[in-house]
Amino acid sequence: MIDVYSWATPNGHKVHIMLEELGLDYRTHAIDIGAGDQFTDEFLKISPNNKIPAIVDSDGPDGQPMSLFESGAILIYLAGKTGKLLGATDREKYNVLQWVMFQMGGLGPMLGQAHHFRIYAPEKIEYAVNRYSNEAKRLYGVLDKQLSRTAYLAGDAYTIADIASFPWTRSWKNQGIELSEYPNVQRWFDAISERPAVQRGVTVLADKRKALTDDKARDILFGNSQYKKR
Amino acid sequence: MIDVYSWATPNGHKVHIMLEELGLDYRTHAIDIGAGDQFTDEFLKISPNNKIPAIVDSDGPDGQPMSLFESGAILIYLAGKTGKLLGATDREKYNVLQWVMFQMGGLGPMLGQAHHFRIYAPEKIEYAVNRYSNEAKRLYGVLDKQLSRTAYLAGDAYTIADIASFPWTRSWKNQGIELSEYPNVQRWFDAISERPAVQRGVTVLADKRKALTDDKARDILFGNSQYKKR
Ligand SMILES: N[C@@H](CCC(=O)N[C@@H](CS)C(=O)NCC(=O)O)C(=O)O
Ligand SMILES: N[C@@H](CCC(=O)N[C@@H](CS)C(=O)NCC(=O)O)C(=O)O
Repeated sequence: MIDVYSWATPNGHKVHIMLEELGLDYRTHAIDIGAGDQFTDEFLKISPNNKIPAIVDSDGPDGQPMSLFESGAILIYLAGKTGKLLGATDREKYNVLQWVMFQMGGLGPMLGQAHHFRIYAPEKIEYAVNRYSNEAKRLYGVLDKQLSRTAYLAGDAYTIADIASFPWTRSWKNQGIELSEYPNVQRWFDAISERPAVQRGVTVLADKRKALTDDKARDILFGNSQYKKR
Repeated sequence: MIDVYSWATPNGHKVHIMLEELGLDYRTHAIDIGAGDQFTDEFLKISPNNKIPAIVDSDGPDGQPMSLFESGAILIYLAGKTGKLLGATDREKYNVLQWVMFQMGGLGPMLGQAHHFRIYAPEKIEYAVNRYSNEAKRLYGVLDKQLSRTAYLAGDAYTIADIASFPWTRSWKNQGIELSEYPNVQRWFDAISERPAVQRGVTVLADKRKALTDDKARDILFGNSQYKKR
Protein backbone atom coordinates (compact mmCIF):
# COMPACT_ATOMS: atom_id res chain seq x y z
CA MET A 1 0.00 0.00 0.00
CA ILE A 2 1.26 3.46 -0.85
CA ASP A 3 0.33 6.31 1.46
CA VAL A 4 0.30 9.62 -0.38
CA TYR A 5 0.61 12.87 1.55
CA SER A 6 -0.54 15.45 -0.89
CA TRP A 7 -2.79 18.26 -2.05
CA ALA A 8 -4.54 19.09 -5.34
CA THR A 9 -1.77 21.22 -6.84
CA PRO A 10 0.45 20.60 -9.90
CA ASN A 11 3.17 18.80 -7.92
CA GLY A 12 0.55 16.68 -6.19
CA HIS A 13 -1.22 15.90 -9.49
CA LYS A 14 1.95 14.40 -10.93
CA VAL A 15 1.94 11.65 -8.32
CA HIS A 16 -1.83 11.14 -8.41
CA ILE A 17 -1.73 10.73 -12.21
CA MET A 18 1.24 8.36 -11.99
CA LEU A 19 -0.49 6.14 -9.45
CA GLU A 20 -3.64 6.07 -11.58
CA GLU A 21 -1.62 5.23 -14.72
CA LEU A 22 0.08 2.36 -12.91
CA GLY A 23 -3.09 1.12 -11.22
CA LEU A 24 -1.29 0.84 -7.88
CA ASP A 25 -3.18 0.71 -4.58
CA TYR A 26 -2.88 3.97 -2.72
CA ARG A 27 -4.45 5.95 0.07
CA THR A 28 -4.40 9.76 0.16
CA HIS A 29 -3.82 11.96 3.19
CA ALA A 30 -4.75 15.59 2.68
CA ILE A 31 -1.98 18.00 3.65
CA ASP A 32 -3.72 21.37 3.52
CA ILE A 33 -0.84 23.67 2.68
CA GLY A 34 -3.08 26.72 3.07
CA ALA A 35 -3.77 25.67 6.68
CA GLY A 36 -0.11 24.91 7.50
CA ASP A 37 -0.35 21.10 7.65
CA GLN A 38 3.08 20.93 5.97
CA PHE A 39 4.76 22.22 9.14
CA THR A 40 3.71 19.46 11.56
CA ASP A 41 6.52 17.33 13.01
CA GLU A 42 4.86 14.22 11.66
CA PHE A 43 4.87 15.49 8.08
CA LEU A 44 8.36 16.99 8.32
CA LYS A 45 9.67 13.53 9.19
CA ILE A 46 8.84 12.33 5.70
CA SER A 47 9.10 15.68 3.90
CA PRO A 48 11.84 17.79 5.55
CA ASN A 49 11.38 20.58 2.97
CA ASN A 50 7.76 21.10 4.17
CA LYS A 51 6.24 20.56 0.77
CA ILE A 52 3.82 18.13 -0.78
CA PRO A 53 3.88 15.53 -2.28
CA ALA A 54 5.48 12.77 -0.20
CA ILE A 55 4.80 9.06 -0.09
CA VAL A 56 5.38 6.09 2.18
CA ASP A 57 5.44 2.76 0.38
CA SER A 58 4.88 -0.07 2.86
CA ASP A 59 6.64 -2.38 0.40
CA GLY A 60 9.92 -0.59 -0.36
CA PRO A 61 12.84 -1.86 -2.48
CA ASP A 62 14.01 -4.21 0.28
CA GLY A 63 10.54 -5.10 1.52
CA GLN A 64 10.77 -2.47 4.28
CA PRO A 65 8.71 0.75 4.25
CA MET A 66 10.27 3.52 2.16
CA SER A 67 9.39 7.19 2.44
CA LEU A 68 10.17 9.73 -0.25
CA PHE A 69 9.64 13.43 -0.91
CA GLU A 70 10.07 15.51 -4.13
CA SER A 71 7.64 14.68 -6.93
CA GLY A 72 10.43 13.96 -9.44
CA ALA A 73 12.02 11.38 -7.14
CA ILE A 74 8.61 9.81 -6.46
CA LEU A 75 7.89 9.47 -10.20
CA ILE A 76 11.27 7.80 -10.81
CA TYR A 77 10.74 5.53 -7.80
CA LEU A 78 7.30 4.39 -8.97
CA ALA A 79 8.59 3.90 -12.52
CA GLY A 80 11.45 1.81 -11.13
CA LYS A 81 9.12 -0.20 -8.90
CA THR A 82 6.88 -1.18 -11.82
CA GLY A 83 9.31 -1.03 -14.75
CA LYS A 84 6.93 1.36 -16.53
CA LEU A 85 6.90 4.85 -18.07
CA LEU A 86 10.66 5.48 -17.89
CA GLY A 87 11.87 3.81 -21.11
CA ALA A 88 13.21 0.34 -21.80
CA THR A 89 16.91 0.95 -22.47
CA ASP A 90 19.41 3.05 -20.53
CA ARG A 91 19.54 5.49 -23.43
CA GLU A 92 15.77 5.95 -23.28
CA LYS A 93 15.86 6.24 -19.51
CA TYR A 94 18.44 9.04 -19.48
CA ASN A 95 16.63 10.82 -22.26
CA VAL A 96 13.43 10.77 -20.18
CA LEU A 97 15.39 11.84 -17.11
CA GLN A 98 16.70 15.02 -18.73
CA TRP A 99 13.14 16.11 -19.52
CA VAL A 100 11.99 15.25 -16.00
CA MET A 101 14.82 17.49 -14.76
CA PHE A 102 13.79 20.22 -17.19
CA GLN A 103 10.36 20.14 -15.55
CA MET A 104 11.73 19.95 -12.00
CA GLY A 105 14.40 22.63 -12.41
CA GLY A 106 12.78 24.97 -14.92
CA LEU A 107 9.18 24.53 -15.93
CA GLY A 108 7.84 23.96 -12.41
CA PRO A 109 9.72 26.57 -10.40
CA MET A 110 9.49 29.30 -13.04
CA LEU A 111 5.79 28.81 -13.82
CA GLY A 112 5.32 28.79 -10.05
CA GLN A 113 6.92 32.25 -9.89
CA ALA A 114 4.70 33.39 -12.77
CA HIS A 115 1.63 32.27 -10.80
CA HIS A 116 2.91 34.05 -7.76
CA PHE A 117 3.58 37.45 -9.30
CA ARG A 118 0.67 37.39 -11.75
CA ILE A 119 -2.01 36.06 -9.37
CA TYR A 120 -1.11 35.74 -5.72
CA ALA A 121 1.28 38.55 -4.78
CA PRO A 122 -0.48 41.37 -2.92
CA GLU A 123 1.08 44.03 -5.18
CA LYS A 124 1.48 43.95 -8.96
CA ILE A 125 5.20 44.36 -9.58
CA GLU A 126 5.71 45.02 -13.26
CA TYR A 127 9.34 43.96 -13.45
CA ALA A 128 8.64 40.58 -11.83
CA VAL A 129 5.42 39.99 -13.79
CA ASN A 130 7.34 40.60 -17.02
CA ARG A 131 10.32 38.52 -15.97
CA TYR A 132 8.27 35.42 -15.27
CA SER A 133 5.74 35.92 -18.05
CA ASN A 134 8.64 36.13 -20.52
CA GLU A 135 10.22 33.06 -18.99
CA ALA A 136 6.88 31.22 -19.30
CA LYS A 137 6.77 32.10 -23.02
CA ARG A 138 10.35 30.94 -23.46
CA LEU A 139 9.60 27.65 -21.71
CA TYR A 140 6.45 26.99 -23.77
CA GLY A 141 8.60 27.74 -26.83
CA VAL A 142 11.08 25.05 -25.76
CA LEU A 143 8.24 22.57 -25.23
CA ASP A 144 6.68 23.46 -28.57
CA LYS A 145 9.92 23.02 -30.50
CA GLN A 146 10.55 19.66 -28.87
CA LEU A 147 6.97 18.52 -29.48
CA SER A 148 7.25 19.53 -33.15
CA ARG A 149 9.77 16.70 -33.46
CA THR A 150 8.32 14.05 -31.18
CA ALA A 151 4.85 12.93 -30.07
CA TYR A 152 5.76 13.14 -26.39
CA LEU A 153 8.46 15.07 -24.58
CA ALA A 154 11.07 12.35 -24.57
CA GLY A 155 10.12 10.65 -27.85
CA ASP A 156 7.36 8.47 -29.24
CA ALA A 157 6.24 7.11 -25.89
CA TYR A 158 4.30 8.73 -23.07
CA THR A 159 6.59 8.79 -20.00
CA ILE A 160 7.06 10.38 -16.58
CA ALA A 161 8.49 13.44 -18.38
CA ASP A 162 4.97 14.09 -19.70
CA ILE A 163 3.35 13.23 -16.37
CA ALA A 164 5.66 15.72 -14.64
CA SER A 165 5.04 18.54 -17.12
CA PHE A 166 1.36 18.24 -17.99
CA PRO A 167 -0.07 19.41 -14.62
CA TRP A 168 1.93 22.64 -14.88
CA THR A 169 0.50 23.46 -18.31
CA ARG A 170 -3.11 23.13 -17.13
CA SER A 171 -3.05 26.65 -15.71
CA TRP A 172 -1.58 28.30 -18.83
CA LYS A 173 -4.03 31.19 -18.45
CA ASN A 174 -2.48 32.17 -15.11
CA GLN A 175 0.94 32.16 -16.77
CA GLY A 176 0.00 34.70 -19.44
CA ILE A 177 0.09 31.98 -22.08
CA GLU A 178 -2.30 31.54 -24.99
CA LEU A 179 -2.06 27.79 -25.51
CA SER A 180 -3.24 27.90 -29.13
CA GLU A 181 -0.08 29.88 -30.01
CA TYR A 182 1.88 26.70 -29.25
CA PRO A 183 0.18 24.20 -31.58
CA ASN A 184 2.42 21.28 -30.70
CA VAL A 185 1.96 21.82 -27.00
CA GLN A 186 -1.79 22.09 -27.63
CA ARG A 187 -1.85 18.74 -29.46
CA TRP A 188 0.18 17.08 -26.69
CA PHE A 189 -1.97 18.69 -24.00
CA ASP A 190 -5.19 17.48 -25.65
CA ALA A 191 -3.85 13.93 -26.05
CA ILE A 192 -2.83 13.73 -22.40
CA SER A 193 -6.07 15.33 -21.19
CA GLU A 194 -8.01 12.51 -22.80
CA ARG A 195 -6.28 9.74 -20.86
CA PRO A 196 -8.68 8.21 -18.33
CA ALA A 197 -5.93 7.89 -15.68
CA VAL A 198 -5.13 11.60 -16.08
CA GLN A 199 -8.78 12.53 -15.76
CA ARG A 200 -9.00 10.55 -12.55
CA GLY A 201 -5.65 11.85 -11.26
CA VAL A 202 -6.53 15.53 -11.48
CA THR A 203 -9.64 15.03 -9.35
CA VAL A 204 -7.74 13.45 -6.43
CA LEU A 205 -8.20 15.62 -3.30
CA ALA A 206 -9.72 18.32 -5.54
CA ASP A 207 -12.82 18.62 -3.37
CA LYS A 208 -10.67 19.59 -0.37
CA ARG A 209 -8.92 22.49 -2.00
CA LYS A 210 -10.54 25.89 -1.78
CA ALA A 211 -9.34 28.88 -3.76
CA LEU A 212 -6.46 30.68 -2.12
CA THR A 213 -8.51 33.64 -1.07
CA ASP A 214 -8.18 34.12 2.63
CA ASP A 215 -5.41 36.18 4.12
CA LYS A 216 -4.39 33.52 6.61
CA ALA A 217 -3.64 30.97 3.87
CA ARG A 218 -1.72 33.59 1.90
CA ASP A 219 0.30 34.46 4.91
CA ILE A 220 1.13 30.82 5.60
CA LEU A 221 2.24 30.28 2.03
CA PHE A 222 3.77 33.57 1.03
CA GLY A 223 4.41 35.49 4.21
CA ASN A 224 7.31 34.75 6.45
CA SER A 225 5.24 32.51 8.70
CA GLN A 226 6.75 29.33 7.36
CA TYR A 227 10.18 30.65 8.23
CA LYS A 228 9.15 31.92 11.66
CA LYS A 229 7.48 28.62 12.46
CA ARG A 230 10.60 26.55 11.97
CA MET B 1 35.82 11.00 -24.10
CA ILE B 2 33.22 13.30 -22.60
CA ASP B 3 32.70 16.69 -24.20
CA VAL B 4 31.39 19.22 -21.69
CA TYR B 5 29.61 22.34 -22.90
CA SER B 6 29.65 24.58 -19.92
CA TRP B 7 30.51 27.77 -18.07
CA ALA B 8 31.89 28.56 -14.61
CA THR B 9 28.53 28.90 -12.82
CA PRO B 10 26.96 26.75 -10.08
CA ASN B 11 25.20 24.42 -12.52
CA GLY B 12 28.40 24.07 -14.53
CA HIS B 13 30.49 23.45 -11.40
CA LYS B 14 28.35 20.44 -10.46
CA VAL B 15 29.41 18.60 -13.59
CA HIS B 16 33.04 19.77 -13.41
CA ILE B 17 33.31 18.56 -9.81
CA MET B 18 31.66 15.24 -10.66
CA LEU B 19 34.07 14.59 -13.54
CA GLU B 20 37.02 15.44 -11.31
CA GLU B 21 35.73 13.16 -8.54
CA LEU B 22 35.36 10.31 -11.00
CA GLY B 23 38.66 10.96 -12.76
CA LEU B 24 36.99 10.63 -16.16
CA ASP B 25 38.58 12.03 -19.31
CA TYR B 26 36.82 15.15 -20.44
CA ARG B 27 37.23 18.17 -22.68
CA THR B 28 35.53 21.51 -21.95
CA HIS B 29 33.91 23.81 -24.47
CA ALA B 30 33.19 27.29 -23.17
CA ILE B 31 29.61 28.41 -23.73
CA ASP B 32 29.72 32.07 -22.81
CA ILE B 33 26.16 32.67 -21.64
CA GLY B 34 26.85 36.39 -21.28
CA ALA B 35 27.75 36.55 -24.98
CA GLY B 36 24.74 34.48 -26.13
CA ASP B 37 26.59 31.27 -27.05
CA GLN B 38 23.68 29.28 -25.62
CA PHE B 39 21.45 30.33 -28.53
CA THR B 40 23.47 28.89 -31.43
CA ASP B 41 21.79 26.11 -33.44
CA GLU B 42 24.69 23.81 -32.70
CA PHE B 43 24.32 24.18 -28.93
CA LEU B 44 20.51 24.03 -29.01
CA LYS B 45 20.77 20.62 -30.65
CA ILE B 46 22.22 19.18 -27.47
CA SER B 47 20.63 21.62 -25.02
CA PRO B 48 17.18 22.63 -26.31
CA ASN B 49 16.50 24.74 -23.19
CA ASN B 50 19.47 27.02 -24.06
CA LYS B 51 21.24 26.48 -20.78
CA ILE B 52 24.55 25.05 -19.67
CA PRO B 53 25.69 22.45 -18.75
CA ALA B 54 25.34 19.78 -21.46
CA ILE B 55 27.56 16.84 -22.32
CA VAL B 56 28.22 14.48 -25.19
CA ASP B 57 29.70 11.15 -24.14
CA SER B 58 31.31 9.44 -27.14
CA ASP B 59 30.85 6.12 -25.32
CA GLY B 60 27.15 6.11 -24.36
CA PRO B 61 25.20 3.28 -22.68
CA ASP B 62 25.02 1.29 -25.96
CA GLY B 63 28.47 2.30 -27.18
CA GLN B 64 27.00 5.08 -29.32
CA PRO B 65 27.44 8.79 -28.50
CA MET B 66 24.94 10.09 -25.96
CA SER B 67 24.12 13.74 -25.40
CA LEU B 68 22.44 15.07 -22.29
CA PHE B 69 21.36 18.39 -20.82
CA GLU B 70 20.23 19.34 -17.26
CA SER B 71 22.91 19.07 -14.59
CA GLY B 72 20.84 16.70 -12.43
CA ALA B 73 20.41 14.24 -15.30
CA ILE B 74 24.12 14.48 -16.11
CA LEU B 75 25.10 13.71 -12.51
CA ILE B 76 22.82 10.65 -12.44
CA TYR B 77 24.13 9.53 -15.82
CA LEU B 78 27.78 9.78 -14.76
CA ALA B 79 27.00 8.03 -11.46
CA GLY B 80 25.27 5.25 -13.41
CA LYS B 81 28.13 4.98 -15.90
CA THR B 82 30.70 4.48 -13.16
CA GLY B 83 28.61 2.93 -10.38
CA LYS B 84 29.79 5.67 -8.02
CA LEU B 85 28.38 8.42 -5.76
CA LEU B 86 24.73 7.37 -5.99
CA GLY B 87 24.52 4.71 -3.27
CA ALA B 88 24.85 0.95 -3.41
CA THR B 89 21.30 -0.26 -2.79
CA ASP B 90 18.03 0.90 -4.36
CA ARG B 91 17.00 2.38 -1.02
CA GLU B 92 20.17 4.44 -0.88
CA LYS B 93 19.79 5.45 -4.51
CA TYR B 94 16.25 6.79 -4.06
CA ASN B 95 17.25 8.55 -0.89
CA VAL B 96 20.04 10.33 -2.78
CA LEU B 97 17.65 11.07 -5.63
CA GLN B 98 15.18 12.95 -3.45
CA TRP B 99 17.96 15.27 -2.27
CA VAL B 100 19.18 15.76 -5.82
CA MET B 101 15.61 16.75 -6.70
CA PHE B 102 15.48 19.09 -3.71
CA GLN B 103 18.52 20.85 -5.15
CA MET B 104 17.18 20.85 -8.71
CA GLY B 105 13.65 21.95 -7.88
CA GLY B 106 14.20 24.16 -4.86
CA LEU B 107 17.69 25.12 -3.78
CA GLY B 108 18.96 25.94 -7.28
CA PRO B 109 16.03 27.84 -8.77
CA MET B 110 15.20 29.78 -5.59
CA LEU B 111 18.78 30.80 -4.76
CA GLY B 112 19.03 31.78 -8.42
CA GLN B 113 16.08 34.15 -7.94
CA ALA B 114 17.73 35.49 -4.76
CA HIS B 115 20.89 36.26 -6.78
CA HIS B 116 18.80 37.92 -9.43
CA PHE B 117 16.80 40.26 -7.23
CA ARG B 118 19.57 40.97 -4.73
CA ILE B 119 22.44 41.48 -7.19
CA TYR B 120 21.59 41.57 -10.87
CA ALA B 121 18.17 43.19 -11.30
CA PRO B 122 18.44 46.82 -12.44
CA GLU B 123 15.99 47.98 -9.75
CA LYS B 124 15.86 46.93 -6.08
CA ILE B 125 12.37 45.56 -5.56
CA GLU B 126 11.80 45.14 -1.86
CA TYR B 127 9.01 42.58 -2.09
CA ALA B 128 11.03 40.28 -4.35
CA VAL B 129 14.26 40.75 -2.40
CA ASN B 130 12.43 39.75 0.79
CA ARG B 131 10.60 36.86 -0.84
CA TYR B 132 13.77 35.19 -2.07
CA SER B 133 15.95 36.13 0.88
CA ASN B 134 13.39 34.53 3.20
CA GLU B 135 13.22 31.49 0.97
CA ALA B 136 17.02 31.26 1.04
CA LYS B 137 16.94 31.29 4.85
CA ARG B 138 14.23 28.62 4.88
CA LEU B 139 16.26 26.43 2.51
CA TYR B 140 19.47 26.78 4.52
CA GLY B 141 17.37 25.86 7.56
CA VAL B 142 16.24 22.66 5.82
CA LEU B 143 19.87 21.84 4.93
CA ASP B 144 21.05 22.58 8.44
CA LYS B 145 18.41 20.39 10.08
CA GLN B 146 19.21 17.51 7.75
CA LEU B 147 22.97 17.94 8.27
CA SER B 148 22.46 17.93 12.04
CA ARG B 149 21.43 14.28 11.63
CA THR B 150 23.78 13.07 8.91
CA ALA B 151 27.31 13.84 7.76
CA TYR B 152 26.23 14.41 4.17
CA LEU B 153 22.88 15.31 2.68
CA ALA B 154 21.72 11.79 1.96
CA GLY B 155 23.46 10.02 4.85
CA ASP B 156 26.97 9.03 5.88
CA ALA B 157 28.40 9.03 2.38
CA TYR B 158 29.29 11.90 0.05
CA THR B 159 27.05 11.60 -3.03
CA ILE B 160 25.77 13.51 -6.05
CA ALA B 161 23.25 15.19 -3.72
CA ASP B 162 26.20 17.01 -2.13
CA ILE B 163 27.87 17.67 -5.47
CA ALA B 164 24.62 19.22 -6.74
CA SER B 165 24.07 21.42 -3.69
CA PHE B 166 27.56 22.56 -2.74
CA PRO B 167 28.17 24.93 -5.69
CA TRP B 168 24.98 26.82 -4.87
CA THR B 169 26.09 27.45 -1.28
CA ARG B 170 29.42 28.97 -2.32
CA SER B 171 27.76 32.33 -2.95
CA TRP B 172 25.89 32.48 0.37
CA LYS B 173 26.81 36.15 0.73
CA ASN B 174 24.84 37.03 -2.39
CA GLN B 175 21.86 35.21 -0.94
CA GLY B 176 21.71 37.26 2.25
CA ILE B 177 22.95 34.28 4.24
CA GLU B 178 25.43 34.31 7.10
CA LEU B 179 26.87 30.81 6.81
CA SER B 180 28.06 30.66 10.42
CA GLU B 181 24.41 30.84 11.54
CA TYR B 182 23.99 27.36 10.03
CA PRO B 183 26.72 25.42 11.87
CA ASN B 184 25.92 22.07 10.28
CA VAL B 185 25.93 23.53 6.80
CA GLN B 186 29.20 25.26 7.65
CA ARG B 187 30.81 21.97 8.73
CA TRP B 188 29.56 20.21 5.57
CA PHE B 189 30.67 23.14 3.40
CA ASP B 190 34.16 23.12 4.90
CA ALA B 191 34.52 19.36 4.48
CA ILE B 192 33.51 19.50 0.82
CA SER B 193 35.66 22.56 0.13
CA GLU B 194 38.72 20.59 1.20
CA ARG B 195 38.26 17.83 -1.35
CA PRO B 196 40.96 18.09 -4.04
CA ALA B 197 38.51 17.17 -6.81
CA VAL B 198 36.20 19.97 -5.69
CA GLN B 199 39.06 22.44 -5.61
CA ARG B 200 39.96 21.48 -9.17
CA GLY B 201 36.32 21.44 -10.32
CA VAL B 202 35.53 24.99 -9.28
CA THR B 203 38.43 26.36 -11.31
CA VAL B 204 37.27 24.77 -14.59
CA LEU B 205 36.56 27.53 -17.14
CA ALA B 206 36.89 30.10 -14.33
CA ASP B 207 39.45 32.13 -16.24
CA LYS B 208 36.96 32.70 -19.06
CA ARG B 209 34.21 34.14 -16.94
CA LYS B 210 34.17 37.86 -16.37
CA ALA B 211 31.90 39.54 -13.86
CA LEU B 212 28.47 40.23 -15.21
CA THR B 213 28.98 43.93 -15.52
CA ASP B 214 28.29 44.97 -19.05
CA ASP B 215 24.82 45.90 -20.17
CA LYS B 216 24.94 43.66 -23.21
CA ALA B 217 25.50 40.53 -21.11
CA ARG B 218 22.74 41.57 -18.71
CA ASP B 219 20.40 42.12 -21.60
CA ILE B 220 21.18 38.70 -23.07
CA LEU B 221 20.59 36.98 -19.76
CA PHE B 222 17.84 38.99 -18.16
CA GLY B 223 16.27 41.07 -20.89
CA ASN B 224 13.88 39.60 -23.37
CA SER B 225 16.61 39.04 -25.92
CA GLN B 226 16.73 35.32 -25.40
CA TYR B 227 13.05 35.14 -26.12
CA LYS B 228 13.22 37.43 -29.14
CA LYS B 229 16.14 35.47 -30.56
CA ARG B 230 14.27 32.18 -30.66
N1 LIG C 1 10.21 20.43 -5.98
C1 LIG C 1 9.06 20.03 -5.19
C2 LIG C 1 8.08 21.18 -5.10
C3 LIG C 1 6.89 20.87 -4.24
C4 LIG C 1 6.03 22.08 -3.98
O1 LIG C 1 6.36 23.22 -4.35
N2 LIG C 1 4.89 21.87 -3.31
C5 LIG C 1 4.00 22.95 -2.96
C6 LIG C 1 2.61 22.72 -3.53
S1 LIG C 1 2.58 22.52 -5.30
C7 LIG C 1 3.90 23.04 -1.44
O2 LIG C 1 3.81 22.01 -0.77
N3 LIG C 1 3.95 24.24 -0.86
C8 LIG C 1 3.81 24.42 0.55
C9 LIG C 1 4.87 25.33 1.13
O3 LIG C 1 5.79 25.71 0.38
O4 LIG C 1 4.79 25.67 2.33
C10 LIG C 1 8.38 18.83 -5.84
O5 LIG C 1 8.42 18.76 -7.06
O6 LIG C 1 7.86 17.97 -5.11
N1 LIG D 1 18.04 23.21 -14.45
C1 LIG D 1 19.21 23.54 -15.22
C2 LIG D 1 19.57 24.98 -15.02
C3 LIG D 1 20.75 25.38 -15.85
C4 LIG D 1 21.00 26.89 -15.81
O1 LIG D 1 20.19 27.65 -15.23
N2 LIG D 1 22.09 27.34 -16.45
C5 LIG D 1 22.39 28.75 -16.50
C6 LIG D 1 23.78 29.03 -15.95
S1 LIG D 1 23.96 28.47 -14.23
C7 LIG D 1 22.37 29.18 -17.97
O2 LIG D 1 22.88 28.48 -18.85
N3 LIG D 1 21.77 30.35 -18.30
C8 LIG D 1 21.74 30.86 -19.63
C9 LIG D 1 20.38 31.31 -20.06
O3 LIG D 1 19.42 31.10 -19.32
O4 LIG D 1 20.25 31.89 -21.16
C10 LIG D 1 20.37 22.63 -14.81
O5 LIG D 1 20.43 22.29 -13.63
O6 LIG D 1 21.19 22.26 -15.68
